[in-house]
Amino acid sequence: MDRIKPRTLSGFMELLPQDQAKMERFMQTLRETYALYGFAALDTPIIEAAEILLAKGGGETEKQIYRFTKGDSDLALRFDLTVPLAKYAAINYGALSFPFRRYQIGKVYRGERAQRGRFREFYQADIDIIGDGALDVMNEAEIPSIIYRTFSKLGLRRFVIRVNNRKILNGFYEMLGLSEKSGEVMQRVDKLDKIGSEKVKALLTDELSVTQEQAEKILAFIAISGSNAEVLAALGKYLGECERFDEGYEELKAVSSLLPAFGVPEENFKIDLTIARGLDYYTGTVYETVMSDYPEIGSVCSGGRYDNLAGYYTDKTLPGVGISIGLTRLFYVLSEQKLLSDALVTAPADVLVIPMTQDSAFAVAAATVLRDGGVRTQIYAEDKKFKAKMSYANKVGFPFVALIGEDELAAGKLTLKNMETGEQELLFPEAAAKAVFENVTARNCGAVIIDRADNKDV
Amino acid sequence: MDRIKPRTLSGFMELLPQDQAKMERFMQTLRETYALYGFAALDTPIIEAAEILLAKGGGETEKQIYRFTKGDSDLALRFDLTVPLAKYAAINYGALSFPFRRYQIGKVYRGERAQRGRFREFYQADIDIIGDGALDVMNEAEIPSIIYRTFSKLGLRRFVIRVNNRKILNGFYEMLGLSEKSGEVMQRVDKLDKIGSEKVKALLTDELSVTQEQAEKILAFIAISGSNAEVLAALGKYLGECERFDEGYEELKAVSSLLPAFGVPEENFKIDLTIARGLDYYTGTVYETVMSDYPEIGSVCSGGRYDNLAGYYTDKTLPGVGISIGLTRLFYVLSEQKLLSDALVTAPADVLVIPMTQDSAFAVAAATVLRDGGVRTQIYAEDKKFKAKMSYANKVGFPFVALIGEDELAAGKLTLKNMETGEQELLFPEAAAKAVFENVTARNCGAVIIDRADNKDV
Repeated sequence: MDRIKPRTLSGFMELLPQDQAKMERFMQTLRETYALYGFAALDTPIIEAAEILLAKGGGETEKQIYRFTKGDSDLALRFDLTVPLAKYAAINYGALSFPFRRYQIGKVYRGERAQRGRFREFYQADIDIIGDGALDVMNEAEIPSIIYRTFSKLGLRRFVIRVNNRKILNGFYEMLGLSEKSGEVMQRVDKLDKIGSEKVKALLTDELSVTQEQAEKILAFIAISGSNAEVLAALGKYLGECERFDEGYEELKAVSSLLPAFGVPEENFKIDLTIARGLDYYTGTVYETVMSDYPEIGSVCSGGRYDNLAGYYTDKTLPGVGISIGLTRLFYVLSEQKLLSDALVTAPADVLVIPMTQDSAFAVAAATVLRDGGVRTQIYAEDKKFKAKMSYANKVGFPFVALIGEDELAAGKLTLKNMETGEQELLFPEAAAKAVFENVTARNCGAVIIDRADNKDV
Repeated sequence: MDRIKPRTLSGFMELLPQDQAKMERFMQTLRETYALYGFAALDTPIIEAAEILLAKGGGETEKQIYRFTKGDSDLALRFDLTVPLAKYAAINYGALSFPFRRYQIGKVYRGERAQRGRFREFYQADIDIIGDGALDVMNEAEIPSIIYRTFSKLGLRRFVIRVNNRKILNGFYEMLGLSEKSGEVMQRVDKLDKIGSEKVKALLTDELSVTQEQAEKILAFIAISGSNAEVLAALGKYLGECERFDEGYEELKAVSSLLPAFGVPEENFKIDLTIARGLDYYTGTVYETVMSDYPEIGSVCSGGRYDNLAGYYTDKTLPGVGISIGLTRLFYVLSEQKLLSDALVTAPADVLVIPMTQDSAFAVAAATVLRDGGVRTQIYAEDKKFKAKMSYANKVGFPFVALIGEDELAAGKLTLKNMETGEQELLFPEAAAKAVFENVTARNCGAVIIDRADNKDV
């Protein structure tokens, strides 16, 4: 037979079983946490009509999109989960109840230049809350608590949710008479961390013809920092000059004031006036999330408030707020940083049942009892030497092995071996099911991420 | 703004939230059941190099495949989960431990002619067990128990797993000297249910030049039926004439004899000599699953034993056994037949918290307590009349509403209203969390499918 060299395309993640087990755990944690906040699961096609996906058009999107024809249809693969949501909300407007809260975890496609850690097929995990005509600021206040619970549940501890409000930024630039240049100004200001304030000031005055005085006011403004109360107090001094600014201030105050009730500790939340996010899109609260010990990874969960989700498809005004996790990339960097827990059971079964007698009916019946007890059980029936069977058990990493020889068969029991401790016990299958279930449940109660704070040696 | 009429491509399933909730439950049941048998989750790219997917080439596959170029890459969307598994096993041969058990639930793509109930994008849910060079028949014996547990867990009761063995069929035709025509003969025999035995006989003699005597032997053979013991006894009469037949007989006996130990009731399992499945591919046990009251739906779970998974990619011989559920189509027909349970909670949250005071901090804190107690909770903060809020709660179908007015605020409690019974109770948030959790857990313990056997009125 002519053989073809098997390969997986570059930029496409394909994990080995033990890593995939961690990824599954990751996704299940997201599903469960999102569900706690009343988000409905949504699944939309990966292929859409190209004109739907490109309604907004232009720029990087058009270059990166996977687009092709099938018959006489002009098709494309979705490049995010927001455009399909907009389409969905427009089509199903009459059938949905608003506010409509949905989460979606799905693959998206971007034909980026392939490089290490960059993916062309990757999961996004998005949540959005969509209002019909209006949406209360309470929904914006709730987002940090969702981010907090999600990352805490995943096992992350040292992370900060950075929050800002676009109305504060836009209002501030309005006060300075720089509304028209605000986008360009924010682009320069965004470089603050990298190049320092003197160089930002130079960029502002040289490239954008901002006056010295304006530039100093801008730098003074974005230098505002401290506790949330301190930042709010400093912002309070700008009140009364610009309606838009005042509105943003009230929203930011509402968002921060509800944090204790939402159970978000102050150390995981920070008002940060340097954050702007997608310049055209967001209009109110904006969010970024950074891992305190890995700032170089950048934001691992971002989003914000927008005024109109589906303007390209409907005349209904659908304001919303949403966040997105770039799941594949996050998983990749956590793995690179060795932050994924090895304590979880990643073997596909909790027990490997090894029948060692001619008649395997009892071994099968024992496996059935184990499964009825919620224990993931594999029967190893291959014709191999005992040593090969145990070596398979070790390599796959089953937490337990159940041996069934003539003695066990006669007693109607099995020898349960704990592969971690080496302990063996002769048990009835029902008792073995209980013992394994309890042991494995305890082992799996840990989180999928081991944060540095958990690791005293580092 | 120029608007584009939003649409979803025909042949692509996109569900409303309440139906999606049922689909999610469906998938979660599959994941959990497959996991009980030691299958590892696998996720492979939806896009592969076209030459990989088309290694086998030819026929319908090539016509239906979504194929396109990006840059200078010739790409295609996977049309099943078997070819990607073969590729994966070939690439990762050294890193995997065999037997390798994997499940995969993922979307596949076939550009079929669009018609009602036919999908171009659809989920398959596959399990396969792959051996390295050899694979014990025990694995074939285990498959019916996986099918049985899966469909039972989904709520189906009246279904039959039909099993046959290709070696028995091939051996039988060998005995008749019809080995070369066996494929064509089986195609004609497959029409038995539709056209009756006389017409099949005519087809065999007229189209395939099978003798009258051979045709009668064939019809007598495929007419063998009865209990599993009766069928095996009848087959026993053919023993000793053909090695291949005898081998198949032993395998079929092994598979049936372990059913009680695997917990599969006799009424859900039937040896059926008319089943052949994919003629080129399967070499041993083959499986079909039919819903007793809906034979017109056809097999909802099929598969079998094959000799070599990945011959196009590697010189390693990787025999295996696997089954596949066409999830999207199954969900569609179950929904059409009104067999999906309405008893499950399909609202995205278990409680809708409605704050009715100016200060919403207590309502938020109560929601946090509910969530900490595992209760899916949504806060309704929109500025609407009370009637509109309750109408939203009714429309979405929240099982409970938590009302928080001045009195509740003063008492640090909430009024929990059971939307099904209308009962109201004034409770501390902790007590409310417990009450809701217990009620909803009980409501959700039912299955996603309501089989006719459950529905006494039909």
